[in-house]
This record gives sequence, C-alpha cells and structure tokens, in this order.
Amino acid sequence: MAMMPFLAEEMGNPLSQHIFGENPRKAVEQARENIARLIVADPEEIIFTSCGSESNNLAIKGIAQAYAKKGKHIIASPIEHHSVLHPLKRLAQQGYEISWLTVDRYGMIDPEQVAHLIRKDSILVTVTSASNEIGTLEPIKEIGRITRERGPLFHTDAVACVGSIFLNVEGLQVDLLSLAGNPFYGPLGTGALYVRKGVRLVPLIEGGIQESGLRAGTHHVAGIVGMGVAAKWARETLIDRRPSLVDLRDQLIRGILEKIPDCFLTGHPEKRLPGHASFCFKFIEGESILLHLDFLGIGATSGSTCSSEALKASHVLKAIGIDALWAQGSVVFSLGIENTYEDVEFLLAEIIPVVGRLRSMSPLAAKFRDTMRPAAG
Amino acid sequence: MAMMPFLAEEMGNPLSQHIFGENPRKAVEQARENIARLIVADPEEIIFTSCGSESNNLAIKGIAQAYAKKGKHIIASPIEHHSVLHPLKRLAQQGYEISWLTVDRYGMIDPEQVAHLIRKDSILVTVTSASNEIGTLEPIKEIGRITRERGPLFHTDAVACVGSIFLNVEGLQVDLLSLAGNPFYGPLGTGALYVRKGVRLVPLIEGGIQESGLRAGTHHVAGIVGMGVAAKWARETLIDRRPSLVDLRDQLIRGILEKIPDCFLTGHPEKRLPGHASFCFKFIEGESILLHLDFLGIGATSGSTCSSEALKASHVLKAIGIDALWAQGSVVFSLGIENTYEDVEFLLAEIIPVVGRLRSMSPLAAKFRDTMRPAAG
Repeated sequence: MAMMPFLAEEMGNPLSQHIFGENPRKAVEQARENIARLIVADPEEIIFTSCGSESNNLAIKGIAQAYAKKGKHIIASPIEHHSVLHPLKRLAQQGYEISWLTVDRYGMIDPEQVAHLIRKDSILVTVTSASNEIGTLEPIKEIGRITRERGPLFHTDAVACVGSIFLNVEGLQVDLLSLAGNPFYGPLGTGALYVRKGVRLVPLIEGGIQESGLRAGTHHVAGIVGMGVAAKWARETLIDRRPSLVDLRDQLIRGILEKIPDCFLTGHPEKRLPGHASFCFKFIEGESILLHLDFLGIGATSGSTCSSEALKASHVLKAIGIDALWAQGSVVFSLGIENTYEDVEFLLAEIIPVVGRLRSMSPLAAKFRDTMRPAAG
Repeated sequence: MAMMPFLAEEMGNPLSQHIFGENPRKAVEQARENIARLIVADPEEIIFTSCGSESNNLAIKGIAQAYAKKGKHIIASPIEHHSVLHPLKRLAQQGYEISWLTVDRYGMIDPEQVAHLIRKDSILVTVTSASNEIGTLEPIKEIGRITRERGPLFHTDAVACVGSIFLNVEGLQVDLLSLAGNPFYGPLGTGALYVRKGVRLVPLIEGGIQESGLRAGTHHVAGIVGMGVAAKWARETLIDRRPSLVDLRDQLIRGILEKIPDCFLTGHPEKRLPGHASFCFKFIEGESILLHLDFLGIGATSGSTCSSEALKASHVLKAIGIDALWAQGSVVFSLGIENTYEDVEFLLAEIIPVVGRLRSMSPLAAKFRDTMRPAAG
C-alpha cells in the first residue's frame, strides 16, 4: 500500500528543511498532481484539507470574507450538504444575504433562475454537482457559463461525484470545487479544494505557510498520499467502471420499483450518479429497513450519510416536495466496484420480505391502512 | 499496528447507522478516552481536529465569536505559534483588541502581568504551555488560577508539550487546550481540542453533527485511532521516559556550550521541555548548520518547525530580545525516545567541525571578525 511508508519510516514533516522531510514533500506534490489531473486542473490550484466539509467551509466562508467589499449577496441551492448550508446560515447572521434557488421534483436546478437572481453585489453562486441523498446531476456547465459571463464566482460541492463522473473544471467554468478522498476509495480524513488561479480566499485555518498560506497545519502525509493514489486509480479506471455501475444502478431501480408496491425513486431517473439509487418506501421508516438490511450485510443509508444520527426530515427531500411522512422512509443505496449483478439480485430478493414484514408491523402503515387509504381511493 | 484495520477492512463511517460504522465508532470513542486520560479530562470534553493548527484556530476564533457580546478584549503572549498569532491578527482586523504580554529573556510570562491586563471585557487569555522554538515551560497553573478567579477563559497551546510533561487540565485550571498527535508519536494530520464543560464555542468547520456539532466532517478514523494508541503509550511511559530525556538534553546543552564558542542557549536553562535544546550560533545561519547535519543523518530545525520555508526572523527569538542577526543562527534539537547517550556524543563530535568550517567561510563571520570584535573588546 502506497500509504505505508508514510505511516512508518517516512514520518517527517514535508515542510521541514531536513532530509526527513524530502520524500514526504515529493509524495505530497505527486498526490497534488494526481488530484489536479482528476479534475483537469493545475496542481497549484489544489489546496489539501482534512475532509469535504472543511473544503466546503473554506470555500464558502473564505470567499465571503475575501469579497465582502464587493458585495454580500450569495445564491445557493436548497439541496446543498450541511457543510455548505450551515456556513451560509452563519453568514446570514453576519449580514450576508442568501438567495435560495428552487429545484424541480427531480432536484434539478434551472440555470435560468441563477441568471435571474444574479445582482451587482452577488459574489458567489454555490450549487452541488450532485446531492448524495438523491443523486441528481446538476447542470453545472450551464451555471458555470452564466456565472463566468455575469460576474459572481461559482463553487460546486463535488464530494459525492468526484471519481464517479468525468469532471473538467475549465470546461465546467467553476471557480471552486470541493472534493473528499473517501468517496473514490481514498482514506477517510482527506479532502481538497480546487481554487482557480486568481481567486482570492481568506483561510479558515491560519498559521504556517502550508498550501500557499491558505491552509495551515502539518500535512496529513499518509492520507494525502492515499488520496493521490486513489485519484490516479479513479481517473484511469473511470471509463471502464462507469457503464457497469450505471447498469447495476438501473437493474436495482427497475427491480425495486417493479417488485415493491408503494415506493418511489427520488432524484432524476437518468441524470443521476452512476451507482446511486435512492427511494422512499411508504408507511415505514428508512432506519428500520437499514437495520434489517444490516443483518444481511447490506449497507445503505437514510437521509444524508453524514447525519444519520440527526433524525430530522431531510431538507433535500423537502426541497423536491416530498411529504415529511414519506421522507422518513428514505433509503439510499450506493453501489461500488465491489458490487456485482448477483449482489443486486440478492438485495432485491431480501428487501421484498423485509419491507413486507416492516409494513405489517408498522403503526404508521396501520394508521394509513385505516385512515388514508380509503380516503385516497 | 492499531491503525491498520481502519485503513483496510474497517473503512466505514463511524456515524453511519449501518454495521460498517460500528467498529470505527467504538474505536473513535476509545481514542477519545485515551486522549482525555492523557490530560485528565472527560472524554466528552475532547473535540477531534485535523491538526494542532486547526485546534488553535478553533479555540481562538471559536471563543472570540461565541463571547463577542461579552467583550472583544483578548490577552496573548508574544511567543505563540503562528496558528494562534494569525487568528489573533485576523480578529484585530475585525474589531477585537489584543493586549500583548511581554516575556523575560528566557521567554517566561509573568502571571502578575496577566492579572494586571485583565479588564471587564476580557474574554480570553492565550498563553502557550511551551514554545517549540525555545522550550520554556510557562507558568500555566498560576495563569489558570488568575483567569479562573478573574473571569476570562484561558486557552493554552500545548502542542509542543503534550506527551512529554504531565498535564492535568483541572489542576491547571485551563478552559481550552490544543494538542496534536504527531509530537507524541501519533500520526500526522491528527489533533484535538480540550474544551471544558460549559464553555461555548462557534465551530470553524460546520455541517454534520460530528463532535457534538463543534467540528463537522467525516472522522479521520485511522488517524484518530493512531493518536489514541500513542496517547495511551505516552501516558503509561511518561514517568520512565522523562528523566532520561532530561539527562540527554542537559548532556547536549552542556556539551554545546562548553565546546562551541560564541553560542548561547535560548529559553530557560532548567524550566524547559525534556528533550528540547535550542541555541543561537553566532556568525552563521542556522539553515546551513541544518544542511550539514542533515548529511550526517541528524535532524534539527531552525525557527519554528512548521515555517522553515518562511525565512523570516523568528518572532519568538525577537520577543526574548535576541538580535535579528543572531536569531539567524538558531538551531533547535528535539531528542526523543529513539535517542541515546551515544547519539548525543556523536552529535557533539560532529557539530564542532561543522560550526568551525561554516564560520571560516561565512561572510557574516568575516565581517564580524573585521569590524565588531575589535570594537567589542
């Protein structure tokens, strides 16, 4: 494993003068090049962070502070990750004005609405490339064209999609792009922010001169090296991985929708992340499905992966108009390279009785059987 | 190695509902307990971060924001790490007032001066436990007694000393304490902030509900586990490690001062970090000594470890009254468990000719031989 030397013999600090820092320094720069190539950027446009959340916080707060004199207006999608939403709410408390976009029932942003909302004092537009809750691929290129033409900077949270779709920051005309290592099989606790040359940023973590002064702190060398190797792998294999992931995903979506009554797909039916299948199962709670699948060795999530402890109705499902009651039955399946046609068949075979059993026990289902259904016809 | 399972089989997210998250979650909480025990805190008072710099930024900016309504006055030592100084400078731009303490020629803070500077609107006092440039151990307990009595919160950057001296946050009466994993042989890219129960903090990285909402972002599980194991080891071995490190340090200090003319110790002669020996070698540049020692396999640093690329005169050496010219000749030796009596003898035998050779070539030395020395007597 590429990370091993940097967890044992090569424990030096890459920014130190002495020789203990020499190999780590080279390894960090090699990783930076691999991350850059994955999104077709220049290595000097990559800032290493500790996770996707830090990248999002750095982008949002860093731009807001750096461009405060130009304006305090920000345009944002309502289906952003919490690590974009919470910083925006913080900025709103500090005198910034946030204009929220709307999405259609698939969670799709209309680029024309972005154009319509841009004002003279708009400094930033932030739209996720794909929400990990519903998987819909947003029209980043169209939004990029509009923002580049009209003035505000454009940030996209690409944590959920880097490594599983082709991304070219120049072609997309984005100015800032957040990513994390673990979604493309890099280690946990790694992330990066692409910042286009010429874009100013106030750092979140200040101190030493690492990352051109934009992110202080001793480099997490082993993690960075691991993320670099994963990025190289992701870039080189994407063209082969993608079609089979799309096939598996469609096999799963077709199977669930055909075999399980009272459930629906969330997000766009085609314009969605490869390997991503998300549903709402009516009359039951997503969490109980997860627990049952868990016993069978099938991992899935409900709502946002990162906040499953926070059992609030998902703001993303709310934004696409799903009733809070149905939103409770949300389940997200993320298929990866380790999955096969047989895995999906196994999942389909197992989930049908699980859903049936849960519905037969569910007070929610009982309530609905008694009251809602006759009323609904 | 304890980290291995979490780099391979156990790649789950500890906050996920499913079973892939179960072992990582337990491992993270085990690590939290080990970090807490190292500084005699409660596990729920520990926030995991990505490095010491993040801990310092979180403490300084987080307290400033959370207590802004109470006041905007902060008292700080002039020998803080850049990851404390830069956030303070940022706050000064935002309307906070910073009162700077002074230090004596050993870099020691006078607790009475802290008492003298405290005002009604003072919200925070920040004094490092020990600067990694000069090693002087600050009177944290006395400052803690004063701040607890008089009102402001007390933060100490203990990155340079956690694991090599005994620390008890309750006994010291500190409210926030920053630490990093690598100084006590934990992995790079790990850190933590102790936040005493009841102390409020505005998070730096917002988003998910990790770390009680005070630090969002997927946990760097492998790193946290590694830091936890290192903390347990550091706590259990400190009583045995400390005396021999102190002996080696004193052997090195005595040897250098006896054998090399025109050099002096920086920091306090006794009240200093075990294993820490720092000097200024007159007439030469510290960096050139480092390069020569490097060829011999001896690692050392000049100025702050983290900023050796930034060849500015150290603010710490300036604060203790060292002329900028002599400050250029600063070298810091950090002895660790891997070092022996023989290593120190080897270093002493090698450094004498290195310093002699450098001085014979140095334009600085030539200049001084020609002009200063006769004048000085």
